[in-house]
Amino acid sequence: MRNLNVAMIGFGNAARAFAGILAEKHEVIKKTMGCDVNVVAITTGSRGSLVCQEGIDLKEACRQIEEEGSFNKGSSQYSKLTSMEVIDTVDYDVMLELTPLQIFTGQPAIDHLKCAMKRGKHAITANKGPIAWAYDELKELAKKQGVCFYYETTVMDGTPIFNLVEDTLKFCKVTEVSGILNTTTNFVLEELAKGIPYDEVMEEGRRRGFVEADPSMDMEGWDAAAKTTALLNVLMGANITPKDIDRKGIEDITEENIKEAANRGCCIKLFCRGVIEDGKVVGTVKPIEVPMDELIAHIDGTSSAVSITTDLMGKLTIVEHNPELLQTGYGVFSDLIRVIANSK
Amino acid sequence: MRNLNVAMIGFGNAARAFAGILAEKHEVIKKTMGCDVNVVAITTGSRGSLVCQEGIDLKEACRQIEEEGSFNKGSSQYSKLTSMEVIDTVDYDVMLELTPLQIFTGQPAIDHLKCAMKRGKHAITANKGPIAWAYDELKELAKKQGVCFYYETTVMDGTPIFNLVEDTLKFCKVTEVSGILNTTTNFVLEELAKGIPYDEVMEEGRRRGFVEADPSMDMEGWDAAAKTTALLNVLMGANITPKDIDRKGIEDITEENIKEAANRGCCIKLFCRGVIEDGKVVGTVKPIEVPMDELIAHIDGTSSAVSITTDLMGKLTIVEHNPELLQTGYGVFSDLIRVIANSK
Repeated sequence: MRNLNVAMIGFGNAARAFAGILAEKHEVIKKTMGCDVNVVAITTGSRGSLVCQEGIDLKEACRQIEEEGSFNKGSSQYSKLTSMEVIDTVDYDVMLELTPLQIFTGQPAIDHLKCAMKRGKHAITANKGPIAWAYDELKELAKKQGVCFYYETTVMDGTPIFNLVEDTLKFCKVTEVSGILNTTTNFVLEELAKGIPYDEVMEEGRRRGFVEADPSMDMEGWDAAAKTTALLNVLMGANITPKDIDRKGIEDITEENIKEAANRGCCIKLFCRGVIEDGKVVGTVKPIEVPMDELIAHIDGTSSAVSITTDLMGKLTIVEHNPELLQTGYGVFSDLIRVIANSK
Repeated sequence: MRNLNVAMIGFGNAARAFAGILAEKHEVIKKTMGCDVNVVAITTGSRGSLVCQEGIDLKEACRQIEEEGSFNKGSSQYSKLTSMEVIDTVDYDVMLELTPLQIFTGQPAIDHLKCAMKRGKHAITANKGPIAWAYDELKELAKKQGVCFYYETTVMDGTPIFNLVEDTLKFCKVTEVSGILNTTTNFVLEELAKGIPYDEVMEEGRRRGFVEADPSMDMEGWDAAAKTTALLNVLMGANITPKDIDRKGIEDITEENIKEAANRGCCIKLFCRGVIEDGKVVGTVKPIEVPMDELIAHIDGTSSAVSITTDLMGKLTIVEHNPELLQTGYGVFSDLIRVIANSK
């Protein structure tokens, strides 16, 4: 039986959804893949950390955070090590970067990934910052160190996008990528189209958890630009950052604009796209009018879609329907399964 | 350098599209996968066969069929062996079953696959008959013989469906499958909805090549039932045949029905679905009214879609937009690449 030790850097909602899946599938992974996976460290920003080389009880760790708000300081597993100290010193095989996104720098997630990979550890990130800001450098480092580096969760949760292309579209060259990638703006545009006033839409979105306290990163298209950058860096070798995306958010879209579009048989969507122009990958994020008879006009609620065009398989679209936290957790889990399958 | 010899049973349009891709990618497969893939036999129903242990020139083989209508009888590679004799006696590693579908039996494709696998050869089928009529038996045989058995092309050409679930949704349990799987009926319903008379629709469909001379297999839902069976056998372990599908075609749908649906804000689609009822997989194919604000109302032209619901990833939909022959060829090619990757 092979052992694989995991360090979780960050323990928010998605991380705990992952922990739930791992706890549930621990035995079947042992049985079918011959691998005993244990989480040996969990760090948080302000809720303490746990380190235990024999393996942390994931259900108990989730319970402490959810019921007590932080890890139990009296426990022998409680640790005062910072995230970086854990990454740099604890004995683990795979580091999971699950910290909150810093959209304009990708830090400290980039440094976390570098530190782990420099130690020869496999790395998984659910945080899109590193893929948007430092993909080529990190990919190169992973290659040099001979470690796995996976990031499926960074766009559309656990929906296979990167793995779809890598595992199932082999020898296909991606010539165009497009999609509806930001849930908040998609929700806002849809509700406005129903005639609900802007303030009510934002309040409802906040209540349901997909409009942030400060919605500007979503409304101004930065989140969509970061996801578009991640897609173009990985699938089209763009080597760009979100600043290179020709970006326009929906902050100036009025109820009047939406009504006019409807009169033309269209809705407005924040559309992300990358194409090759003069041999160079060019990315755009902007609100466009989409005729109601087109598929992407009907990516509604919190659903998302990515279309991938390749030389050999034409255009395929994959849609994630109204995901919940479990789907984000599964993205990290599926990357971990790939590490088990692809490493020795 | 490893060698992999391929026998192609059938050399129709899709088979030749595959041959074109393989010829184009031969060198890059050698370089990146260390495998020299050669086609050593090609059989046809009535256009002769070729056998050449050193490898057949695929471009020349395509040229002979396309320009001369049959293989050149004067060639030293020309063979009078039947398909079954080739499968049973020629020295190859992978057999590609590319013969036309016999929708009510799956034969002789099933026997071709059995013969090859009994000889310890890997097998790929683009023919959905065997997956609809004998999947469990063939899968068992492949397992017993320790050979690869792949069939991605049988539903939605090279669009990753089976590989999507197997490679990228590991440890997910499929709880429901649904989709729009038959191009002919989808086209017919859409054109009728535009007000074009039935006879004109069928003529246009025949001209464009996706309405058969005898369209009954499509119109009565048999093709959709065979595809649904394939999906349910592979993804949900149904162990059924097309006869077990609760099937209703569109042959009785009138222009009046379509108008009435439109008045209710709906279109009519031939909808395929499989769910678990009382622990048993139940498959249906029938025309249903789909509200125009739903995604699948907009799977138009010759596009297809499959939605897959799993316990861990919720509902995902994958759409193939207006495929051409290349996409069918790519399905076979992608299975061959999997054989190279997964066999020694």
